[in-house]
Amino acid sequence: MQYDIKDKNLSKAGKKRIEWASNRMPVLELVRNRFSKEKPFKGLSIGACLHVTTETAVLALTLKEAGARVSLCASNPLSTQDDVAASLVFDYGIEVFSIRQEDTKTYYKHIESVLSFKPQITLDDGADLVSTIHKRKQTYLPWGGTEETTTGVIRLRALEKEGRLLYPIIAVNDAFTKHLFDNRYGTGQSTIDGILRATNKLISGTVFVVCGYGFCGRGIAMRAKGSGANVVVVETDPLKALEAVMDGYRVLSMKKAAAIGDIFVTATGDVSVIRKEHFILMKDKAILANSGHFNVEIDLKSLDKLAVKKREVKPFVTEYLIKSPGHPSLPLRTLRRRTLSVAKCQATRSQGKRLYVLGEGRLVNLACAEGHPAEVMDMSFANQALSCEYIAKNYDKLKKKVFSVPQAIDQKVAGLKLKAMNIDIDALTKEQKKYLSSWQEGT
Amino acid sequence: MQYDIKDKNLSKAGKKRIEWASNRMPVLELVRNRFSKEKPFKGLSIGACLHVTTETAVLALTLKEAGARVSLCASNPLSTQDDVAASLVFDYGIEVFSIRQEDTKTYYKHIESVLSFKPQITLDDGADLVSTIHKRKQTYLPWGGTEETTTGVIRLRALEKEGRLLYPIIAVNDAFTKHLFDNRYGTGQSTIDGILRATNKLISGTVFVVCGYGFCGRGIAMRAKGSGANVVVVETDPLKALEAVMDGYRVLSMKKAAAIGDIFVTATGDVSVIRKEHFILMKDKAILANSGHFNVEIDLKSLDKLAVKKREVKPFVTEYLIKSPGHPSLPLRTLRRRTLSVAKCQATRSQGKRLYVLGEGRLVNLACAEGHPAEVMDMSFANQALSCEYIAKNYDKLKKKVFSVPQAIDQKVAGLKLKAMNIDIDALTKEQKKYLSSWQEGT
Amino acid sequence: MQYDIKDKNLSKAGKKRIEWASNRMPVLELVRNRFSKEKPFKGLSIGACLHVTTETAVLALTLKEAGARVSLCASNPLSTQDDVAASLVFDYGIEVFSIRQEDTKTYYKHIESVLSFKPQITLDDGADLVSTIHKRKQTYLPWGGTEETTTGVIRLRALEKEGRLLYPIIAVNDAFTKHLFDNRYGTGQSTIDGILRATNKLISGTVFVVCGYGFCGRGIAMRAKGSGANVVVVETDPLKALEAVMDGYRVLSMKKAAAIGDIFVTATGDVSVIRKEHFILMKDKAILANSGHFNVEIDLKSLDKLAVKKREVKPFVTEYLIKSPGHPSLPLRTLRRRTLSVAKCQATRSQGKRLYVLGEGRLVNLACAEGHPAEVMDMSFANQALSCEYIAKNYDKLKKKVFSVPQAIDQKVAGLKLKAMNIDIDALTKEQKKYLSSWQEGT
Amino acid sequence: MQYDIKDKNLSKAGKKRIEWASNRMPVLELVRNRFSKEKPFKGLSIGACLHVTTETAVLALTLKEAGARVSLCASNPLSTQDDVAASLVFDYGIEVFSIRQEDTKTYYKHIESVLSFKPQITLDDGADLVSTIHKRKQTYLPWGGTEETTTGVIRLRALEKEGRLLYPIIAVNDAFTKHLFDNRYGTGQSTIDGILRATNKLISGTVFVVCGYGFCGRGIAMRAKGSGANVVVVETDPLKALEAVMDGYRVLSMKKAAAIGDIFVTATGDVSVIRKEHFILMKDKAILANSGHFNVEIDLKSLDKLAVKKREVKPFVTEYLIKSPGHPSLPLRTLRRRTLSVAKCQATRSQGKRLYVLGEGRLVNLACAEGHPAEVMDMSFANQALSCEYIAKNYDKLKKKVFSVPQAIDQKVAGLKLKAMNIDIDALTKEQKKYLSSWQEGT
Repeated sequence: MQYDIKDKNLSKAGKKRIEWASNRMPVLELVRNRFSKEKPFKGLSIGACLHVTTETAVLALTLKEAGARVSLCASNPLSTQDDVAASLVFDYGIEVFSIRQEDTKTYYKHIESVLSFKPQITLDDGADLVSTIHKRKQTYLPWGGTEETTTGVIRLRALEKEGRLLYPIIAVNDAFTKHLFDNRYGTGQSTIDGILRATNKLISGTVFVVCGYGFCGRGIAMRAKGSGANVVVVETDPLKALEAVMDGYRVLSMKKAAAIGDIFVTATGDVSVIRKEHFILMKDKAILANSGHFNVEIDLKSLDKLAVKKREVKPFVTEYLIKSPGHPSLPLRTLRRRTLSVAKCQATRSQGKRLYVLGEGRLVNLACAEGHPAEVMDMSFANQALSCEYIAKNYDKLKKKVFSVPQAIDQKVAGLKLKAMNIDIDALTKEQKKYLSSWQEGT
Repeated sequence: MQYDIKDKNLSKAGKKRIEWASNRMPVLELVRNRFSKEKPFKGLSIGACLHVTTETAVLALTLKEAGARVSLCASNPLSTQDDVAASLVFDYGIEVFSIRQEDTKTYYKHIESVLSFKPQITLDDGADLVSTIHKRKQTYLPWGGTEETTTGVIRLRALEKEGRLLYPIIAVNDAFTKHLFDNRYGTGQSTIDGILRATNKLISGTVFVVCGYGFCGRGIAMRAKGSGANVVVVETDPLKALEAVMDGYRVLSMKKAAAIGDIFVTATGDVSVIRKEHFILMKDKAILANSGHFNVEIDLKSLDKLAVKKREVKPFVTEYLIKSPGHPSLPLRTLRRRTLSVAKCQATRSQGKRLYVLGEGRLVNLACAEGHPAEVMDMSFANQALSCEYIAKNYDKLKKKVFSVPQAIDQKVAGLKLKAMNIDIDALTKEQKKYLSSWQEGT
Repeated sequence: MQYDIKDKNLSKAGKKRIEWASNRMPVLELVRNRFSKEKPFKGLSIGACLHVTTETAVLALTLKEAGARVSLCASNPLSTQDDVAASLVFDYGIEVFSIRQEDTKTYYKHIESVLSFKPQITLDDGADLVSTIHKRKQTYLPWGGTEETTTGVIRLRALEKEGRLLYPIIAVNDAFTKHLFDNRYGTGQSTIDGILRATNKLISGTVFVVCGYGFCGRGIAMRAKGSGANVVVVETDPLKALEAVMDGYRVLSMKKAAAIGDIFVTATGDVSVIRKEHFILMKDKAILANSGHFNVEIDLKSLDKLAVKKREVKPFVTEYLIKSPGHPSLPLRTLRRRTLSVAKCQATRSQGKRLYVLGEGRLVNLACAEGHPAEVMDMSFANQALSCEYIAKNYDKLKKKVFSVPQAIDQKVAGLKLKAMNIDIDALTKEQKKYLSSWQEGT
Repeated sequence: MQYDIKDKNLSKAGKKRIEWASNRMPVLELVRNRFSKEKPFKGLSIGACLHVTTETAVLALTLKEAGARVSLCASNPLSTQDDVAASLVFDYGIEVFSIRQEDTKTYYKHIESVLSFKPQITLDDGADLVSTIHKRKQTYLPWGGTEETTTGVIRLRALEKEGRLLYPIIAVNDAFTKHLFDNRYGTGQSTIDGILRATNKLISGTVFVVCGYGFCGRGIAMRAKGSGANVVVVETDPLKALEAVMDGYRVLSMKKAAAIGDIFVTATGDVSVIRKEHFILMKDKAILANSGHFNVEIDLKSLDKLAVKKREVKPFVTEYLIKSPGHPSLPLRTLRRRTLSVAKCQATRSQGKRLYVLGEGRLVNLACAEGHPAEVMDMSFANQALSCEYIAKNYDKLKKKVFSVPQAIDQKVAGLKLKAMNIDIDALTKEQKKYLSSWQEGT
């Protein structure tokens, strides 16, 4: 058995935490129960590039109980929970290649390790595994794959548009029971959670700037508002901007937002959303975090260049001391001092301010907290497991395209979740069904 | 010039109110401005079956300034604002056939009046005009039409599915700038408004039951919650039910909801959502209203049968006195009395309770208030006007199908609305556009 | 029997509406039930200066059933519901002196009519009756009185402070079951209701400025936010300003707020809160309303002077056309025109804008809607009735001071309300009571 | 120098975290700045029994810079941050006696250590220090003291009522800038924070039961609602119960709540709020936490007795396996197993369920997270520091009573906070001041 993990001694804590997550994933449990009897992946190799968290562990075990050989690498250098990785290897026999805070080279080496098992089915979160396959010399091709995120789906559709997609992918992200819940309620809660664990800052009364009003951004804005913040939304799409206005938020250009924000969170899927022209406008002690998939939304390179000094002031909180003044305007030499004496607000030739970046600009919910709660991953990963089963059964009929999750799977996941929550809903009556399919009854 | 309206003397008040609405519809104003120069409907007849409100008046005038002969009838027997109808005829030369509280026979006679002008383009709100065309002997066919509502689109897709749709229809309802805004923010606000005007009831602290969690239902639930209610949602679709749960609402079966609700609102597009088995479970003084398109969602026929007595206690508030007891349980003879003496809570052989139905079970926002605010109809009707223009220019290429609003129109409407609200948003930078269309940049 | 009302023929509609309110006032009903047996006011004259609404009618009848001769005048020239006044006189034998839109002279003449009955107990809403007594030559003095509002209590405490209060007053406003509920949930809902009935404006997406963050202001802000507005608060008290910030609102100076608001509501109890320096900064089409007791919060005199033209565009909506430009900047001559043609945005020598004042700057919930819902007045007026009883029983022991409502009354009202809503709460256990009164049990 | 702490090597991390907190406490910084010049506590001994957190550290340093000798012990056995204790001793020379998870005996020994310095001024959080003084033989008495919490104030008022209070206490808790902010926004946020760090549970869609609707309970309910929960409130006071109803929450008896809750939080200040009769009704996997001062609100003794098995499943999460069945009903032997296999739902003779208690039933925000954010403690502790100064200056005039914070201090703290947040508010104009003090201007 192969693996590359941080520390095998962490497995005990990992096992407990996996159990905790498992107990909060009833839909996936029902799927696992059936899979363990039907063994739909018997003899197959499945390779997954996902955040190595407790919930992913439960998915991996589900695939294994279904008969697959499962190998797993990280989909982000900073999201691995090392105790979970250890438990997966030593308690459950999953081949894991993933170490928290690994460098980029190791990150891609681990992807190659997973590919060395020639998986028939790939699972991706951000499309790094599938794009690695597309970039290297093709020695083999999987039957099909799944993709978990908005960002990954955008990348794959770009590939598809260029006519270069080499094997079929199911866009799990596009399932209603995924993006309506995971991206909104999951990212919403866990982003605030990550900020609080990193800073313990009072959200109430802050100006909280959310960049991007897709499902993730909507979730973050909703929870920031629910925490008492005054939320500002930055958007480039007029439809989403208008929706944010109607939801009661201020919508501003990034420059105007930069000058007033206390906390900034990016969730756009795009690059350099907050950049030099914005850093120099910010207030002293502004906090910057990212909830988009890649660490490119905050332009850290130009922030590094601006900085006079940079240091870690708390775990996963980096302070950048920069010259451009904020409010209140403080002398640089005061800001350099590390004491509790009062910072004098007086003009000197070198005024400066402090900006704080959380989790190195990577997904703040995974870098500074534990990622999405098990209860939402339950649905996302039930979709994943059932989509993998769909590929295993239908791969020979699928074209090299990006597919949606079959609607029946989506509905089924929702129904099982309600059942697990002990919530009964009515069915349509015969009369009601008939009425809906008729066009003749009017006023 | 032909018309059939209530009272020409109401025109003065109507004119003022149309002006008020017009001043709150800046996007439609920009469209009207261009149309008045380009005259895209020169020589055409346009027939509209819409709620005859101030906002519809502004749309009708926009079509007229664009060169069309416009005729208008009501899309609901109880939604016509008679002063608006009068002003349209006498101040603006629109041929209107519509009288508030007209009976069903007159309602359909008025539809025939509009069809007598052989409109090349039809506008519908609920599909009564287009279905009339489909039911009668075809002497002529329009070039194309538009449909405003979820309900109408469902009917038209049923027609399309049967292969019987006779001319192309653009589903304006499906535009983002329509259903995301009109159905949610419009219906949300105006439904609460209708209930308040009819009852002046404190919403805070009530158990408020919303049947249906589509865009209308979501809007109603959101505003009821925002008014301090404890909201219960009834749904048959597991996806929507689950979304309601995650939004913090209680989701119950209709029977369980019936027993605890203070106020009930239906917005499902389906029939007999609240029926005999539910009425008998309700509490004394429960209030029932409908915000779905047709007056079929509350089964008034069976309520009539249940009732010992029925009377109008306030304008558009009908009291049904029924035998089945509620909480508190009161003797029927006490409930019949019309005094201010204390209602004694004592067991007699004839216990009873009172249920109140608003606006005869018709759209409560139009029956008891003024319908959607002009600010949302601004977008819906800009979509209507631009879709009509699209038909006028492309009718010879369109198949007999239900079409979506072209995305460019949708985006344009949103952009114009933001501009009118003086809200600036950023554009994507070159670097950002490039990033979004690339699949190669990963971790 | 004496009276001065608008039209006796309105009594039928009034009676129905009083009955409707009565059915929603269960606590007052329980009080009325007891009073009708015990007759605590037998032989007494009670004079009330209150908003003549359906709820006040139920209070007046309660006092009458308790044995009193009741006379009633208005506490605001614009809040009388003429149908209610008619029914009170002709159906129930209450002596009413009150006509909607009466002038100030008549207003005070009606107060004198009530005083002509030499009431032993007075009820006030804004302290106009009690201050009239204090200003005129004292020919007699009541035993005691009650006051309903924050504004009235402020006036009475000023009197008390000057040592000139002539008879004891119970500040009903200060009861928890009054100001926590009536001022917050009542004013919150009915203020939005008044604005909607007057304007049918979409609240969602507007910048909604609330001046004053007392209990009324908090309620208005809460409901505006719940309606989708972006709420701005203006305060002069740092404690309240800070609370508004922590509640997620923007807190701005009046000048900054003036420049960005779409809707303004005052609820401060003070004078000239919005004045010339603010009007000139406002945007075109801004809407101004007042929810404070007196019509002095918006400085209408200076607005009148600023105006080039003034007209009523809808019932209780006055348009002021003023020269100072707003956004967008429009030529005055365009704004004067009453057509639907496009308003051209071009610079001319006479740029102008339109401001809209609702209900002549008087209480917008009473001028444009029906005032507080019966459900909250139920508690306020139960406090009133029980406080009157307290005066009748204890007047000879009371000093000439402003008193609080006895706590037992307050608790009782809350308990009865919960019971009427069928909500059970636990009592403290013996162990819990003991624990609370002990200081010895620590860590 | 004396001290008793966990580990001096933790001081480096503690120092950084204290600096972080200090940077978020601008009001206290202004106070510290003045104190360091004026030295109001020169030569005095100050003894504090507070949660040993970063914010308390900043307060201790403020008192020290003002000239005092400061000694500090914990006000809760589980709230000490050992790194902060170490830094206070070795970087700042404060005498600290406090170790996280110390037993009760050590806890009281540490209080005695502080008292050995014979402090002239005492600071308390829960009144354990002051009650220790009252219980032991009095060898000396402090000049005065302060108390931070609702619970402590209740204990002290009980002492005062018995006529046994030995020295004057200022109830800092009762300052508006304390309880309105700290108890509501602080406890609200940090309670959710504690639950998330312990469980990573999705709050959205849960039934979240809040016991107690005082300022803490209101804050918790508000934030739980803002996190998407369906909130249920349990109260014994009819006024607070009614307020909860009007705020849109369900109000239930504890028994009814017990049967449906997913998460329970107590914040009542009373004992045995959740007890055996409630545990047996709960659902499988229910989570219990406490945010009241003492660990008596959840009756852990009777839960211990009920339990078949008890283990720690995550840090500060204790699982109690009990026989009484919940939903779904599961065989005990399945629940004992620690695997990921599906838990079969079948009837056996020994059905059971799991309950989870967070942080041993102690303050969940301190046991499982970092306590209140610095931004709210800024105000609470500015009140503390200024109240201590008030005692130092006025102790000889103060009676042995429980005093409120002088209003001037309260107002000043609010004003400084607004200034620190860069928020300008208007002052009353002369005309407005005059109007407020006049009773003569009416309608």
